[in-house]
Amino acid sequence: MKAYTYVKPGLAQFVDVDKPLIQKPTDALVRLVKTTICGTDLHIIKGDVPAVESGRILGHEGIGLVEEVGSAVTNFKKGDKVLISCVCACGKCYYCKKGIYAHCEDEGGWIFGHLIDGMQAEYLRVPHADNTLYHTPEGLSDEALVMLSDILPTGYEIGVLKGQISPGSTVAIVGSGPVGLAALLTAQFYSPSKLIMIDLDENRLDRALSFGATHKVNASDAQQAIEQVYALTDNRGVDVAIEAVGIPASFDLCQKIIGIDGTIANAGVHGRPVSFDLDKLWIRNIQVTTGLVSTNTTPQLLKALEGHKIAPEKLVTHYFKLSEIEKAYEVFSEAAKHQAIKVIIENDISPQT
Amino acid sequence: MKAYTYVKPGLAQFVDVDKPLIQKPTDALVRLVKTTICGTDLHIIKGDVPAVESGRILGHEGIGLVEEVGSAVTNFKKGDKVLISCVCACGKCYYCKKGIYAHCEDEGGWIFGHLIDGMQAEYLRVPHADNTLYHTPEGLSDEALVMLSDILPTGYEIGVLKGQISPGSTVAIVGSGPVGLAALLTAQFYSPSKLIMIDLDENRLDRALSFGATHKVNASDAQQAIEQVYALTDNRGVDVAIEAVGIPASFDLCQKIIGIDGTIANAGVHGRPVSFDLDKLWIRNIQVTTGLVSTNTTPQLLKALEGHKIAPEKLVTHYFKLSEIEKAYEVFSEAAKHQAIKVIIENDISPQT
Repeated sequence: MKAYTYVKPGLAQFVDVDKPLIQKPTDALVRLVKTTICGTDLHIIKGDVPAVESGRILGHEGIGLVEEVGSAVTNFKKGDKVLISCVCACGKCYYCKKGIYAHCEDEGGWIFGHLIDGMQAEYLRVPHADNTLYHTPEGLSDEALVMLSDILPTGYEIGVLKGQISPGSTVAIVGSGPVGLAALLTAQFYSPSKLIMIDLDENRLDRALSFGATHKVNASDAQQAIEQVYALTDNRGVDVAIEAVGIPASFDLCQKIIGIDGTIANAGVHGRPVSFDLDKLWIRNIQVTTGLVSTNTTPQLLKALEGHKIAPEKLVTHYFKLSEIEKAYEVFSEAAKHQAIKVIIENDISPQT
Repeated sequence: MKAYTYVKPGLAQFVDVDKPLIQKPTDALVRLVKTTICGTDLHIIKGDVPAVESGRILGHEGIGLVEEVGSAVTNFKKGDKVLISCVCACGKCYYCKKGIYAHCEDEGGWIFGHLIDGMQAEYLRVPHADNTLYHTPEGLSDEALVMLSDILPTGYEIGVLKGQISPGSTVAIVGSGPVGLAALLTAQFYSPSKLIMIDLDENRLDRALSFGATHKVNASDAQQAIEQVYALTDNRGVDVAIEAVGIPASFDLCQKIIGIDGTIANAGVHGRPVSFDLDKLWIRNIQVTTGLVSTNTTPQLLKALEGHKIAPEKLVTHYFKLSEIEKAYEVFSEAAKHQAIKVIIENDISPQT
């Protein structure tokens, strides 16, 4: 089959590889229908994630059709249309029992396109299929469903829920990329009073306004951005700051705009330590949270989708065929230039069975 | 009257000052019965808290007898024996309405011995007496009550409650000083499975064992200390790490021993930023909390004291008269040498009325 694989730092290729097989009774084999690209894939290709070995198929978001199931799989059968979570979960280890599937200890957590082969391919082996797959309710668009593999639950669980957004909250989201926008969409479940989007790019900020942000703040001048946030919040700072970039400057902005009793919910993937102003913040009764998504809100998000409470398909800006995946990467790597948020990549190679 | 006052960095003096007067209808005038010294007082004398002006009477922990109340005070009358909270609270500002008395905006928060005169004196003006004072139930020792002004609620609210200790939790407390020990005592309300005390001083560690710690770890070799903690926690790290020192090294130890889904509850007063390993911790689903005590658990702690669920008088190691306060400071400043935790200073100067 065809698949997009990591080769070495700076290089990934669309190549022929063996079609995967069922390896364990709890596995399923899925024919991909649609997938997408995540910022993490770009980091991997740069060489930032050394655990990824040469030849690894990339991608951890997608929907598909079940081709075959292992003997222990009971929730799914051949022909089922499925949402594939970015996180695999055995459902029975120490962390799964706590509901933290992100840290599943038995071929689980975020492993697709990382420690095992991923979804930018014609076919996928899915470990722990009963927990990793979700049935897709009738009437939902493929675009919306693909957004539920990773970025919607990430923005929701790691930004909105850990941030404890509640009615009337003042919220700032630092970073108007896919995860920041997913947080923006899901934050609106909880009726915050202010949703301030902060970014360096005016196009992205304007898009955020069209997605429900109440204010935009351009962070090109950090000090001015901080003053704007205080001006918008009775000079108190925000109740919730969601960090959705993953660099020291964006964390720093969060710690400078967080109000007394506020929460900084870090959703960004960081490559370096940050300077944390405990000399100023020890007294301010704040919280900082971190986390990898567990996707255990997926059933809740599917119901929200069915109830028309959210429209994540708005995040999709570009369409490609799997045979054009290299072009898709070109566009996504220069997202600002192309005003791209998420691209949909459709499997045009292997026939639907 | 006599009072111990800050003069300039490096100098404090026991001097004659004017007796305070009622200034507002919500004030009370209290004759101190017993007070103590806090590590914060030593920081102030060193010059670390520039907001403290020359001539400021130090001290923010104590019990006393009400001498006089302002016309708006309804909960207290002359002659009442009272616990004086380290935090004043108007009870009606934005933060008081949220229960965060620490950040009361109207002559509130931690102001005694800081922004207004404190308790190392014969008499004290108490703002917002109805909220700042507490009636003392019959049969409780003065020593136990003095511990409830600050360190018990600090260890409890900022360490134990923010750390979310629950039955079976594995807990490490970094720093076996007064606040660390207060956290150790109050942590036992919640039946953690392991209470690991970490310090550099073997005497302090042994005291912690006698106060209910299940294990001691000497942090003189940080790497070895980290390994010991992992060995005690099935190689997972702790569920809760309470930082009760306030220096970069102690925060660093906390971030290195915290397990997935764990909480670092920072109770230490920091004078510098710290390096926060978000590159390792972004993925680990942790929380970091900070805060100044609000003392709104004081009624709960008083009931726990009445029910013999806690014995904070064990923290008292030395006794002095107010007329000997300079000697008390000598001992407390060299706490390790004298094996001192908390000293009790009794007002032997002004007569009980």
